[in-house]
Amino acid sequence: MSIIVHKYGGTSMGSVERIKNVARRVAKWHAAGHQIVVVPSAMSGETNRLLGLARELSPMPDGRELDMIAATGEQASSGLLALALQAEGLKARSYAGWQVPIHTDSAYTKARIKSIDDARIRADLDAGCVVVVTGFQGVDDAGHITTLGRGGSDTSAVAVAAALKADECLIFTDVDGVYTTDPRVEPDARRLTVISFEEMLEMASLGSKVLQIRSVEFAGKYRVPTRVLSSLTDPNMPLDEEMKSGTLVTFEEDEKMEAAVVSGIAFSRDEAKITLLGVPDKPGVAYAILGKVADANIDVDMIVQNQSVSGTTDFSFTVNRTEFARTLELLNSTIVPAVGAREVSSDDKVAKVSIVGIGMRSHAGVASLMFRTLAEEGINIHMISTSEIKTSVVISDKYMELAVRALHKAFGLETAPVTKV
Amino acid sequence: MSIIVHKYGGTSMGSVERIKNVARRVAKWHAAGHQIVVVPSAMSGETNRLLGLARELSPMPDGRELDMIAATGEQASSGLLALALQAEGLKARSYAGWQVPIHTDSAYTKARIKSIDDARIRADLDAGCVVVVTGFQGVDDAGHITTLGRGGSDTSAVAVAAALKADECLIFTDVDGVYTTDPRVEPDARRLTVISFEEMLEMASLGSKVLQIRSVEFAGKYRVPTRVLSSLTDPNMPLDEEMKSGTLVTFEEDEKMEAAVVSGIAFSRDEAKITLLGVPDKPGVAYAILGKVADANIDVDMIVQNQSVSGTTDFSFTVNRTEFARTLELLNSTIVPAVGAREVSSDDKVAKVSIVGIGMRSHAGVASLMFRTLAEEGINIHMISTSEIKTSVVISDKYMELAVRALHKAFGLETAPVTKV
Repeated sequence: MSIIVHKYGGTSMGSVERIKNVARRVAKWHAAGHQIVVVPSAMSGETNRLLGLARELSPMPDGRELDMIAATGEQASSGLLALALQAEGLKARSYAGWQVPIHTDSAYTKARIKSIDDARIRADLDAGCVVVVTGFQGVDDAGHITTLGRGGSDTSAVAVAAALKADECLIFTDVDGVYTTDPRVEPDARRLTVISFEEMLEMASLGSKVLQIRSVEFAGKYRVPTRVLSSLTDPNMPLDEEMKSGTLVTFEEDEKMEAAVVSGIAFSRDEAKITLLGVPDKPGVAYAILGKVADANIDVDMIVQNQSVSGTTDFSFTVNRTEFARTLELLNSTIVPAVGAREVSSDDKVAKVSIVGIGMRSHAGVASLMFRTLAEEGINIHMISTSEIKTSVVISDKYMELAVRALHKAFGLETAPVTKV
Repeated sequence: MSIIVHKYGGTSMGSVERIKNVARRVAKWHAAGHQIVVVPSAMSGETNRLLGLARELSPMPDGRELDMIAATGEQASSGLLALALQAEGLKARSYAGWQVPIHTDSAYTKARIKSIDDARIRADLDAGCVVVVTGFQGVDDAGHITTLGRGGSDTSAVAVAAALKADECLIFTDVDGVYTTDPRVEPDARRLTVISFEEMLEMASLGSKVLQIRSVEFAGKYRVPTRVLSSLTDPNMPLDEEMKSGTLVTFEEDEKMEAAVVSGIAFSRDEAKITLLGVPDKPGVAYAILGKVADANIDVDMIVQNQSVSGTTDFSFTVNRTEFARTLELLNSTIVPAVGAREVSSDDKVAKVSIVGIGMRSHAGVASLMFRTLAEEGINIHMISTSEIKTSVVISDKYMELAVRALHKAFGLETAPVTKV
């Protein structure tokens, strides 16, 4: 008998009929002898509806009250799912985050899970219950309701799986796994059967929306085997088939991983690039620029500083495109006069394209194949940033799809590599 | 400085604009130096929407999960109201029932409040906060969410007022007070400025929907001065005017009460009457009949047993019209054979009309004026039931409005009596 955690997203919970399908699927797993904990999101649209009302009432809504409001979406869907499970003949009980309890810090609207008390869940599981736990929320030390931010239900599910030392955490979603790249851009994109935790982390941070990045961090920290799979299949599909579907995020690279050098291509169009030209090259200048940007709560992504020429240097960074205007204003009003830069150049029509693969650790020439491929397509590279298992470039956004397709082909991602096992 | 509890119903919380009006009204009371606790219902339609989803998922939904689902309506509206109060420049904080906590028993969907811990509310009030407390809900000893049943927010408000020893509990609703009878039936119906607690209790139990009966019981038990008034007035109306509006439920009969013998006329069309004819008149027969009806969770209202004639008697009672078919089936299948009744006669086209007034205690002839009035209109009386301050009759439902109007006139309710003060 295994402990299995299921997570269902808002689309999977989006109607009475879909909730019934979730219940049928859970019943199938339960009938196979597993102990099941289910973590549902709010019904699709519900969180946006609630936050929309909040914004109509207050232009700068208080985080504590926002969490009070938003947390109701998951509480309602959890109760509804428990009813659907009972209608399937199962014993079922739902718990809000504070009832488990799922302890978090007090950073309203983006709280982090500190610990989970698993006693109540375990007692119910041992009594034959399916336990439904609200995603997305917890409770702080003072007894206030908190939420974990967008996509937080993924994190809830993985954290509950970690607390229970579950055998697997299944993230049911409206895609059937993790792809080599977005199939809407590259029709030959291929579903990965396995992806390493580190690669998944890079994919998530680079804008692949399949899993919330914090859930991947949690899975990594507690080594929770996590599978991304589709909730849109027939809920009665054979269990052994379902257990092999989707994409497994794994920690056992050497034995199970595919032999690919590059596993996937991530991209993001939400980028804007800003360059300060002729910045006096002296200690503290990077902090003088980025410290003020950070103080304004603007997230900086890539940062590049060129070699100093005759005492001045050029300093470039990217921000989310929605922060572009605010960043430029901040630079021109405060930062440029303070650091004495000659000029600001900027471009909000750029995109970021990244290749990701743990094979890059041991294979030389991966980045150079990327650069050659882009050059052959006549695509100019504005910025380059690398990590151990990823290389990202900033390019003009009109070339983004072309770059993705060319790289997908150059790294042979349309065909599955021979696995080592 | 007084502690004042405001309660706002679902209609008053029904839209963003209405929630803003509630916030303006509360801000006015706060600006006058009062400490304010606000108890809102869910936005109108929300509870029905949630329970509708629940019923679609399960024909016999589990009470615990229903409460988990239904309680979200008040949690969301409370958070939204806190935001609206903050937008008015006030310090405000919302609490769910379990956060106060409001302790209840475990009778899901119709729980009763056992105690309220007022420490958290008091601390916030003393810190200058307006405190928003979810209506309708609490938490049981095992930490499960409970709800108090339809109209339970009235009870929450009165109970919170009792716990805080508040100076007054204001029930803001979509009517502007308690009337001598329903103005839709009798256009000359008049708003009462004061009503005694006992009369209010009878009015509520007889079907006047202004206050939930349990809230009146609570108000009586803890002697909470409770005022029913309109939320549809201009939120900026002068405070001294608003403080005198609506109807005050009072406990100080001798000093403040109007000199009327009858204060109001209540009525209900949701009635059905059942008579067992030729029941052997022996000890235990009433229990043999009504015990089984109670076991089937059917509420019996009026009960009349006639004088025995030659060893048999006729036994009549009324039930809610929705329980009529079920009650008849139970009688014919089980009870009639067991007690040996000759025949069952039944009528689900009956209504109950009641006159209520504490003056009936000291005035003779009140009931006889009622019977004479009905006789003069040619209305036949099927059953009569009396209490110390009420006389109810069951009549054919087609005469209900006629009876109400005739009695309203006969007891002179269209003009305010001279008060004793």
